[in-house]
Amino acid sequence: MADTAAAQEFDVLILGGGSAGYSAALRAVQLGFTVGMIEKAKLGGTCLHTGCIPTKAYLHAAEVAAETRESAKFGVNATLDSVDMAKVREYKDGIVAGKHKGLTGLLKMKKVTVIEGDGKLTGKDTITVDGTEYKGKHIILASGSYSKTFGIEIRDRVLTSTEALQMDYTPKSAIVLGGGVIGSEFASLWSSYGVDVTIIEGLPHLVPNEDPAIIKVVEREFKKRGIKTNLGTFFEKVEQDENGAKVTLTDGKVFEADIVLVAVGRGPNTDGLGYEEQGITLDRGFVIPNERLHTGVGNIYAIGDIVPGVQLAHRGYQQGRFVAEEIAGLNPQVVEDINIPKVTFCDPEIASVGYSQPKAEEKFGRENVEVAEYNLAGNGKSSILGTGGLVKVVREKNGPIVGVHAVGKRMGEQIGEAQMWVVWEAFPEDVAQFIHAHPTQNESLGEAAMALAGAPLHG
Amino acid sequence: MADTAAAQEFDVLILGGGSAGYSAALRAVQLGFTVGMIEKAKLGGTCLHTGCIPTKAYLHAAEVAAETRESAKFGVNATLDSVDMAKVREYKDGIVAGKHKGLTGLLKMKKVTVIEGDGKLTGKDTITVDGTEYKGKHIILASGSYSKTFGIEIRDRVLTSTEALQMDYTPKSAIVLGGGVIGSEFASLWSSYGVDVTIIEGLPHLVPNEDPAIIKVVEREFKKRGIKTNLGTFFEKVEQDENGAKVTLTDGKVFEADIVLVAVGRGPNTDGLGYEEQGITLDRGFVIPNERLHTGVGNIYAIGDIVPGVQLAHRGYQQGRFVAEEIAGLNPQVVEDINIPKVTFCDPEIASVGYSQPKAEEKFGRENVEVAEYNLAGNGKSSILGTGGLVKVVREKNGPIVGVHAVGKRMGEQIGEAQMWVVWEAFPEDVAQFIHAHPTQNESLGEAAMALAGAPLHG
Repeated sequence: MADTAAAQEFDVLILGGGSAGYSAALRAVQLGFTVGMIEKAKLGGTCLHTGCIPTKAYLHAAEVAAETRESAKFGVNATLDSVDMAKVREYKDGIVAGKHKGLTGLLKMKKVTVIEGDGKLTGKDTITVDGTEYKGKHIILASGSYSKTFGIEIRDRVLTSTEALQMDYTPKSAIVLGGGVIGSEFASLWSSYGVDVTIIEGLPHLVPNEDPAIIKVVEREFKKRGIKTNLGTFFEKVEQDENGAKVTLTDGKVFEADIVLVAVGRGPNTDGLGYEEQGITLDRGFVIPNERLHTGVGNIYAIGDIVPGVQLAHRGYQQGRFVAEEIAGLNPQVVEDINIPKVTFCDPEIASVGYSQPKAEEKFGRENVEVAEYNLAGNGKSSILGTGGLVKVVREKNGPIVGVHAVGKRMGEQIGEAQMWVVWEAFPEDVAQFIHAHPTQNESLGEAAMALAGAPLHG
Repeated sequence: MADTAAAQEFDVLILGGGSAGYSAALRAVQLGFTVGMIEKAKLGGTCLHTGCIPTKAYLHAAEVAAETRESAKFGVNATLDSVDMAKVREYKDGIVAGKHKGLTGLLKMKKVTVIEGDGKLTGKDTITVDGTEYKGKHIILASGSYSKTFGIEIRDRVLTSTEALQMDYTPKSAIVLGGGVIGSEFASLWSSYGVDVTIIEGLPHLVPNEDPAIIKVVEREFKKRGIKTNLGTFFEKVEQDENGAKVTLTDGKVFEADIVLVAVGRGPNTDGLGYEEQGITLDRGFVIPNERLHTGVGNIYAIGDIVPGVQLAHRGYQQGRFVAEEIAGLNPQVVEDINIPKVTFCDPEIASVGYSQPKAEEKFGRENVEVAEYNLAGNGKSSILGTGGLVKVVREKNGPIVGVHAVGKRMGEQIGEAQMWVVWEAFPEDVAQFIHAHPTQNESLGEAAMALAGAPLHG
């Protein structure tokens, strides 16, 4: 690779250095390929810079604030003076910078050639960056996603999550437009910071993709926390002036607050990148590859948020590795979206993998589905943490566990075991004989499985 | 069961209402047996009243105090005024009382006959309580354990964990005699409360049963936290007067502090309970049943802390259920001690299941063992929480995972997934294809498994 011409040809050329792109790059290098990766902004993409990582830092600051506020109930006398947003941002920036530095160093060490700039697919084996052509025997499209706005102008008091993560103050009040993952996380953290929060969601429920039992707990706990909601009516317009922002719903109702967060989902970054010109079909902006993530054109694959399905960093990781292994001829196993764990890091945390009860009933037939719920009120560690919540396990009748759903403080960490049950098609009876460590929140998973096996530990 | 005579005969008669005893009782009732259970103190035993649950409440208060103290690093301005031990105790008592009420109600609802008083085995099918004989077609001995003291007089400034949980003040300084599970937990929580703590451990290391990689982190973190240690020399005597307490080591070294906690292990409660008179062999006080927990005498079984092995509530649960199922002829699967997860809830938390590296090398041969370590510095959620630590996975070469070891804040909750790997004999390659949820601490398990499979996600 000494001369310039050779350096512009790679075994694998990747457009986008986010979670999906860089995991493909690292796995491809492990498998012996030369790899070029094009990134127009910062390595690590949405997840690292404006998504998962910064929001979780904000949520942890929220946890610390909430815990300090309630410290008396644990016998600790403490005073919460203030949440200093400039300092929270500094803490968050420190975490992000550390990870960014680590990732940049790792890619360099592994000899991934990082190409900075705007890339455009200009041939079936070519991506052009600022007039320079780069060739790949295999191309992987991983151009990521953006915050959708439905035409709402984003400026000043009307923000998406990207802008919200740059604020250095806490507003007195906030309207969160959208009660999905991002909306629920921001509503939760702002509320812990002392902001008066109202969520407006057009669908009849918050976190509408979750199991109904989980939704019920989240709505109840948010209400207890003083987070207001207006559900079941879509918004019509968003306005602002120097005094505040205003959301008008289709039924004429008006909500006012200091700021509005627009959290109405994320769309695929595929516009103007040359995909269609090379014969790749887009559907509402998404690339539609086959189940092995091939686009049907040349040796071009698509991964991450531009592929319809759950837009999660770890789905991106998985797809990136999958495609690298596919290119290497390793014939990797397809992981269905349903087997990908999902966590919403609001308080209470939500975690799920596999089928919700309604989706299981739709797939297997109502009479072929059994469920058990375990209330965290019975779980010692949860009582110690002062959290309510539940675990719900869904099985095929006389068959394996097909879904696990949990809600409660810190319950996101339980999804790893749940994932193993679902992907390995464990029977509740298999799980029931192994007793979980006491006293952990992890026990609640065991209790739910034991209940579903007809042999509850505490019952 | 209307008349008194009938009420004194049971299918299953259990001596001891702690974790082991009551789980046997509940499972036996589920399986259709009549059950009597004798308890001299409070239902729930050591774990609920003077063990797992109260110490974990104290440790959570410690976590809240520590987090408040360090809140500025998360951007939260808060002041820790004091840890009010009377209030911490009240919080702890509230948790314990709630669980005790729940357990008492559950046993009543399930029609377990609870007999209050001191029971003694007076025949192969008989336990006598305050002069009244109770008969059981099957007898289960579950008489539990006590804090060992090696002849040290427990009063005033010299305490076991039982007395320490009744204190309504924080001492200025404390010596913790014993660096095992209980000692490390108390050292950790007192240190967070602001106590000047010194651990004296006769063996060369803290938590000596853990994998060396874990021990190293714990010792380093304890040192960072200002917890002093004196390792490798046993104590000779413990003295006290009205001004303080004093521990003299066998090498003549003397340590002084306000109080001394004696945390040198727990012994079996078997003395004077009539076991030997009925032909049951005791070995240093322990009952030695066969691997199916039968004592070799009549229909008498032994479970929980009186059986040699790890003295853990959830081993008691498991053994209780096992024996109930054995009596019912269900032929339950034996769970080896090595497959029982272990958590020490100090800060940093320690979790392990299966073989440590040295134990695996001993069993399988040094050349047949492979390990991978993953440093939590690479784990986003751990960085957000501000914790270091690691995950270490041990496998048989080209074989299954046989041990998982973790250390770091909150890492105890990861042991459920690790337990599934070990008991189901998963290969790292099986785990590697399923990506864990981002950004969770749970990812660190996946990263360690992927590293061991030769395909790290970030590497």
